[in-house]
Formats: sequence, C-alpha cells, structure tokens
Amino acid sequence: MSRKVSGPEIERVVQLLARLPGLGPRSARKAALTLLKRRNELLLPLSEALATAAEKVVACSVCGNLDTVSPCSLCQDPRRDRSLIVVVEEIGDLWALERAGVVGGLYHVLGGHLSPLDGVGPDQLNIAGLIERARTDEVTEILLALNATVEGQSTAHYLTEQLAGADVVVSRLAQGVPIGGELDYLDEGTLAAAIKSRRRL
Amino acid sequence: MSRKVSGPEIERVVQLLARLPGLGPRSARKAALTLLKRRNELLLPLSEALATAAEKVVACSVCGNLDTVSPCSLCQDPRRDRSLIVVVEEIGDLWALERAGVVGGLYHVLGGHLSPLDGVGPDQLNIAGLIERARTDEVTEILLALNATVEGQSTAHYLTEQLAGADVVVSRLAQGVPIGGELDYLDEGTLAAAIKSRRRL
Repeated sequence: MSRKVSGPEIERVVQLLARLPGLGPRSARKAALTLLKRRNELLLPLSEALATAAEKVVACSVCGNLDTVSPCSLCQDPRRDRSLIVVVEEIGDLWALERAGVVGGLYHVLGGHLSPLDGVGPDQLNIAGLIERARTDEVTEILLALNATVEGQSTAHYLTEQLAGADVVVSRLAQGVPIGGELDYLDEGTLAAAIKSRRRL
Repeated sequence: MSRKVSGPEIERVVQLLARLPGLGPRSARKAALTLLKRRNELLLPLSEALATAAEKVVACSVCGNLDTVSPCSLCQDPRRDRSLIVVVEEIGDLWALERAGVVGGLYHVLGGHLSPLDGVGPDQLNIAGLIERARTDEVTEILLALNATVEGQSTAHYLTEQLAGADVVVSRLAQGVPIGGELDYLDEGTLAAAIKSRRRL
C-alpha cells in the first residue's frame, strides 16, 4: 500500500472502504474495482443510497434504533407490547431479533457493553435512558438480551443492580443447546447450562 | 433477510453493499451499521468519494487502466519504457505490479481471460487493441503477465499465436518457488517448473 498507483480519487474510495468491518486493504481494492467497473448499476446507486441514508437516518431518541423518524417506527408501533423492553448491545442485535420476529415488545439499544479496559463505562452506554424508561408505570419487564460473552454478562449483572430500584421484572435469555446443535461440539459451559436448566417433558 | 426490519433507506444500502465482492448479507449489514454510526467520518465521505469517482474516473483508451485522464497517467509518463507492454488480465493485477514497482514499461489490461463456457471469447477482451499496439514500431516486447491458471495460460497461448505476425518478442513471467515458499507445501506443477527452469549459481 506504500505506492499510490491509482490516483487520489480511487485511492480515497479504497481507503474509506478499508475502514468497513470485514474489508481489509486487499478486499477494499477489489470492492473499489467492482464499483468502478459497474458505474451505473452499483457505483452511482451506492453513492446516492449513502447520501440518502446520511440525510434521513437518525438515532431514535427513545430506544437508540436507527430509522428515518424519531421515535422510531418500532417505538411508535401501537401493536407492540409496551410493558416489555428488550435490551440489546447493538442495533445489529435488534435487527437479528426482528428478523426472527420473536419480540413483541419494545427495544433498548445500549450501544455496546461495559469494557473498562476500552474506556467503556456506564456513562458511555445508553443506561440512564433505560433506567428512566424502566421507572415508567407501563413497563413491567426488562429482558436483557445481551451476548453470552463475559462482557455481555457482566453488563447484564451491572444492569440488574441498577434496575433493582425500579418496579420491574428483570429477565435474561435462556441458555442451552442451540437448535441444530450437536452435543459433541458444544463447550462445557453450554452443556452445564443446558443440564442445569433442563425442562421436564 | 425476509423481514425488512430497518426501513428502505438502510435496506437499500445493505443490498448494494452486499453486491460487493467479499461482503455477504451479514457482513453488508455490519458494514452498513458501521457507516450509519459514523456518519460524518465515514458515511458522508464515502458517499462523496464514490460520487467523485463516478464523475471523474474513466477507462484509459490506450491500456484500459482506470484514471481521471485518458490516456492514463501511466501511459503518459515520459519516464516509462515505451518498448515494453506488460499484458495483465485485470486492473487489480496492474495495481499489484505497480505496488511492487517492478514494471518500467507500459501496460495493457485485457479485462479478463478467455473462458468460452462463460461466453468470453477474444471479442469480449481488449485483444484487438493489444495487436494494434504491438504493431507500432516503438514496441519491441510484449510480456504476458497473466495468472498461472488454466484460463490465464490458455489466454497467453492464444495471444502468442495472435502476436506471431507482429515484430515483437513475446515473453511470460518466470514460474518457480515463490519467495518464502516452503517446498513441502508447494504443488507438483510449481516444483516441476522450478526444477525445469533451474538457474546455475
């Protein structure tokens, strides 16, 4: 990457693409070439789609989701159960749950997990907003749908403490064998959780 | 991907990003989220860089390289040896050679390799332009820097035949053990080529 071989305009596209997750310098160059070779079908549409998104998409002031309106269309949806707030780390997690269509309630996006080593404390996450929402009368349950990682679980632990004062049930996702999972390939922690939380048939 | 959970503006960005090489639906969503979360540092600059590239970047009428001028800055560079034309399949190959800084001559980008099964014959590649350039007096050598794949080598074979009438030396890249290569991990074809083309010390 030391020699700039393709002019500043192309180089700029490559450099910006290389900052996306999943694209290194090499795949960013490949992506840039694909864009340049497909100017009308891909390059111009993507440029315009990004400009439109930059202009219209905003963070929801209530839950932190991204949408063109704030409060977002999920928060505004009258069919949703307003007594349940599902707390997720990232918007990608919210999207995953929505794709699965398994949440009837509202969401709250923390914007990450607690990670003192990376300088992420409670003030860097959208926790104050969650506490405030939990204190409203209509909310009766807070489901902590955080990642089953050390960071996710310690964040869940912290939130449970913070929510102790609010009159809500705090719950977490079930842990156990994933659908399609083969016992032989699962880690000991998962197997232990699956045994401990076994269900009577 | 069946349920659209994030509004048409975001969904459009995801869909376009998913058409780039190296990005599937999942990584395209991750990339879109990164863009949206970093609106000013990444989303807007990328949108503008793509628009600029779409407006300014053109294919070089001589060699097929992409640049903001045609003939491109490589073709116009007076320091380059105009007697040597290095033929590559794709612009990415040209970039790789330029990054290595190992070519003193000019380039010619074919735009792919012969692949009858995919409907890519001689007319789909920039071969006529190469023959024309080879016939000019100043060109004395055509170096076929094509991929060491079956398609690349059969394209090289075809070009060698086509260039027989022109008064030029046709050469190809050396084949052998790559720098840092361990014999134990190399295929038989490479080892055979390295033995056959061995050099006296």
